[in-house]
Amino acid sequence: MGRVVVEVMPKPEILDPQGKAVVGALPRLGFTQFTGVRQGKRFELEVDGDVTPEVLVAAQQAAEMLLSNPIIEDVVRVADAAVESVA
Amino acid sequence: MGRVVVEVMPKPEILDPQGKAVVGALPRLGFTQFTGVRQGKRFELEVDGDVTPEVLVAAQQAAEMLLSNPIIEDVVRVADAAVESVA
Repeated sequence: MGRVVVEVMPKPEILDPQGKAVVGALPRLGFTQFTGVRQGKRFELEVDGDVTPEVLVAAQQAAEMLLSNPIIEDVVRVADAAVESVA
Repeated sequence: MGRVVVEVMPKPEILDPQGKAVVGALPRLGFTQFTGVRQGKRFELEVDGDVTPEVLVAAQQAAEMLLSNPIIEDVVRVADAAVESVA
């Protein structure tokens, strides 16, 4: 069984209230080294067989059609989860 | 300026209604190869300097304390975003 990771982030010019909330909370917990936070989404899509190039193309299309809103979000990564674990 | 990526997923035994909604919608759009979907979060934390090992340790701690709910979520990745781009 293979798994594809798809990641989506708000575009840089889009306000990100969740990220703002996190960046406000971090110093209160003693984490003063982080100057900005953005929050997006990570999807894991399972396939029965291997993650072939065709599966990655389909995942990219699904990412653009369904998993992201292209007006306000960018698809920042589409990758085989097995490759990710090695990196 | 450095950036750390932190990724959080619902634990396998936790219901994931957002993932279920996506896996139901995919075949209606012609994507029949995906048998399961889980939805989690991706955070990008900015630091002024480089992403040092100390920054990664702090990011891991912040991930466990603030960015995830350890009862229902796992921190699946804490990595330098620059390394990610190369992979």
